[in-house]
Amino acid sequence: MKNEKITERTEDFAKWYTDVVKAARLADYSSVKGCVILEPNGYAIWENIQKIMDGMFKECGHTNVYLPVFIPEELLKKEGELVAGFAPEVAWITHGGTSLLEERLAFRPTSESLFCDYYKNAVRSYRDLPKLYNQWCNVVRWEKETRPFLRSREFLWQEGHTIHETADEAIEETYRMLGVYKKFIEEYLAIPVITGRKTDKEKFAGAEFTTTVEALMQNGICLQSATSHYFGQKFAKAYDVKFLDRNNNWSYVYQTSWGSTTRMIGALIMVHGDDHGLVLPPKIAPKQVSIVPIRPQDELLEKCEEIRKLLSENGITSYIDKSDKSAGFKFAESEVNGIPVRIEIGPRDLSEGKLTIVRRDTREKKVINIDDVLDKTKYLLDDIQKCLYDNAKKLMDKRTYRCSTFDEMKEVMDNNPGFVYAPWCGDEECEVKIKEIRGTKSRCITDNEVHDSDKCVACGKKAKHEVVWGLQY
Amino acid sequence: MKNEKITERTEDFAKWYTDVVKAARLADYSSVKGCVILEPNGYAIWENIQKIMDGMFKECGHTNVYLPVFIPEELLKKEGELVAGFAPEVAWITHGGTSLLEERLAFRPTSESLFCDYYKNAVRSYRDLPKLYNQWCNVVRWEKETRPFLRSREFLWQEGHTIHETADEAIEETYRMLGVYKKFIEEYLAIPVITGRKTDKEKFAGAEFTTTVEALMQNGICLQSATSHYFGQKFAKAYDVKFLDRNNNWSYVYQTSWGSTTRMIGALIMVHGDDHGLVLPPKIAPKQVSIVPIRPQDELLEKCEEIRKLLSENGITSYIDKSDKSAGFKFAESEVNGIPVRIEIGPRDLSEGKLTIVRRDTREKKVINIDDVLDKTKYLLDDIQKCLYDNAKKLMDKRTYRCSTFDEMKEVMDNNPGFVYAPWCGDEECEVKIKEIRGTKSRCITDNEVHDSDKCVACGKKAKHEVVWGLQY
Repeated sequence: MKNEKITERTEDFAKWYTDVVKAARLADYSSVKGCVILEPNGYAIWENIQKIMDGMFKECGHTNVYLPVFIPEELLKKEGELVAGFAPEVAWITHGGTSLLEERLAFRPTSESLFCDYYKNAVRSYRDLPKLYNQWCNVVRWEKETRPFLRSREFLWQEGHTIHETADEAIEETYRMLGVYKKFIEEYLAIPVITGRKTDKEKFAGAEFTTTVEALMQNGICLQSATSHYFGQKFAKAYDVKFLDRNNNWSYVYQTSWGSTTRMIGALIMVHGDDHGLVLPPKIAPKQVSIVPIRPQDELLEKCEEIRKLLSENGITSYIDKSDKSAGFKFAESEVNGIPVRIEIGPRDLSEGKLTIVRRDTREKKVINIDDVLDKTKYLLDDIQKCLYDNAKKLMDKRTYRCSTFDEMKEVMDNNPGFVYAPWCGDEECEVKIKEIRGTKSRCITDNEVHDSDKCVACGKKAKHEVVWGLQY
Repeated sequence: MKNEKITERTEDFAKWYTDVVKAARLADYSSVKGCVILEPNGYAIWENIQKIMDGMFKECGHTNVYLPVFIPEELLKKEGELVAGFAPEVAWITHGGTSLLEERLAFRPTSESLFCDYYKNAVRSYRDLPKLYNQWCNVVRWEKETRPFLRSREFLWQEGHTIHETADEAIEETYRMLGVYKKFIEEYLAIPVITGRKTDKEKFAGAEFTTTVEALMQNGICLQSATSHYFGQKFAKAYDVKFLDRNNNWSYVYQTSWGSTTRMIGALIMVHGDDHGLVLPPKIAPKQVSIVPIRPQDELLEKCEEIRKLLSENGITSYIDKSDKSAGFKFAESEVNGIPVRIEIGPRDLSEGKLTIVRRDTREKKVINIDDVLDKTKYLLDDIQKCLYDNAKKLMDKRTYRCSTFDEMKEVMDNNPGFVYAPWCGDEECEVKIKEIRGTKSRCITDNEVHDSDKCVACGKKAKHEVVWGLQY
């Protein structure tokens, strides 16, 4: 029943990835270079991500807004580091209708500058703080090499933007939202992650510091899955965002931003997928159960409808595949699409009061009594969610290393890459040197204490931090 | 308690409109010419619109997708009428980073061309039909004059796109979705509407025909609130979207599209608003009830929280205004924001087991027993929804006229404009002539029969259709 179109992971992981994206109808290439079409199955996952995350953001007091997609060049240029960081990736609008614009407009690569422009008018006193905003939108970054979900010129994301009275509050917010991302990715996407601070070289352009959520794919490559930034007063000063503080003095606001993208769908594929296609954690699957009648008989279809209704009443989403394809084809389709649980039922099953239930993760089949279908489905959905996380965690642990020399690190990255914990002196030169190993980059700085005996893995000098290193998408 | 910042409607309706937009914090102007910021109160209405309409679309079998924001110039140009219609309004991207693009890209003004490009690969046989898609996204049309919600260079919308095996099915879909819009706008936005077909002059560029939902604002100006188009095989031929039909012949698909935008928020304001600010129909209000404790006492706040919880358990959204503003200020704020029901409760009320409940539409106040708060709130929310619709319907009926001569029509439009039913010969010249009356345009062709005695209101020749005419936003 294996779908022949999917390359095996051990043969060519990159090819396997694009095969799954196509076969599960998550995304399709378009006539627009570097942009993909999010097809129904892919977009439905994004809708679920949006619904759940949006609820979590609102729970912390954030409200949604929508700011313009255009940023006038002068406005974008006010914060030098930001524009220097994004300049090579900005797409420019130069004409409106048949007229050349007086000032060209950037398609937003991120919206800090516009939010500052908005805050400026919206804030007068400390009573107006904090402002806790979020927006769901499209952004454009003119990338050279693109891959569905992982990197494309246009992508969908959410960007949170907040301003606060004090540095402490803004720093607390930065870590709070990092925690929200970690919780969402672990609990819903069933992907174990590590979190920490980026090195200065890897931080967001214009940020005081950047925190990150990093996940490990099955092939040992790291994927930055969400980031949360603390800006201090940098942007506030550049854009003149002031307020009257409690002592009636003018003070600049303290600012954060945090973002996550459709890239998380890429992580889902590469953490849980197998040679048969996509494997979706039940908590994020748009459809949790597929019901396949073996023949298109009325009595059978009625029973299927009865089961669908029973599941629906218990908060479980399912669909009946009534198409005129063969049963085998339907099984394979449900499998390649990553539907967590499949129910198969034929005329003989019905007469015996039985059905077959199949879990997608292990592909284990069981014949059960029809009367037990709700309990069994509930159990399987819970168990699959748990097993997917546990397996991913096991793999991550297996591919987590501690290295104390450059050669050790090279050995690991060349053969079996993963998260490599190693001491670092704090010099950018050493990061550049380590990059020689297949492009290895610092993923994040850990909170672990550094001892006198710890020496930088690149230069051998005294270490300042412990850093997690890895290959990256 | 009247908010002094709001101009009265009779004084200057246009100024009143922008005052309400600002005072109710629905939208703010930005540094980006012709684009507005959707502020929390405005965006929350859009979120509710999205949630409800999205459910209605899915109920009819549509799934959401997301197509690129860019349209390569050559792709856009394939259908001549479409490009001719939109060319003056297209914003062009010419640079990616520091490089000039080989082919400039349009910021989508609408996505028919991209959907055709997608269909082309997704459809092979009649078994693949129909395809029923929708997308929620931003579009850009380079307008000269802009007004918040009514007309802006970038706006948010949904665009449905479907293809079908037969003309009949596609035409049925065109009218089905027109019906969905009518139902949504009448039942949720409490705005009575008329529907019908556009004249050829007013139809969507490239459509065989366009159907429209038209609403009447308090000042007698019409607002096109949603449109649904039938394309026949026009685009299919231009973009070569073919399928193997039931007779194994290649056939072109039949196509529709339909759209509605944040403009509906403009209609909400102008149909229901009053001199005190926004008035929101309960079914679309992000917050249906405001609870105002007269003093910040613990006991009072506890009772407010109890009421909030009780309402929430019964599916009613409310919030407690705990800010340190004066009670009077809070009342005014709740009023200007259009919250349908306000609950006021002070220490003496509490000791007497009473509270004051105020409905936003009539501003009528009533003292009731605290124990009756749920029943009374439920009743008021239902009644307000109904009254808002009924009042709008009365106004629409009052401003609906039948004219048989040009002078009669001029008389109406000059003094008390509204929907004017009048016969029309079918010639575009007559439409141009009628436009001389303050820019009067045909809103839609009615289904009413035309008699031999009906003469065109412009030229006096035999009428072909009855048309509704009006001034427009």
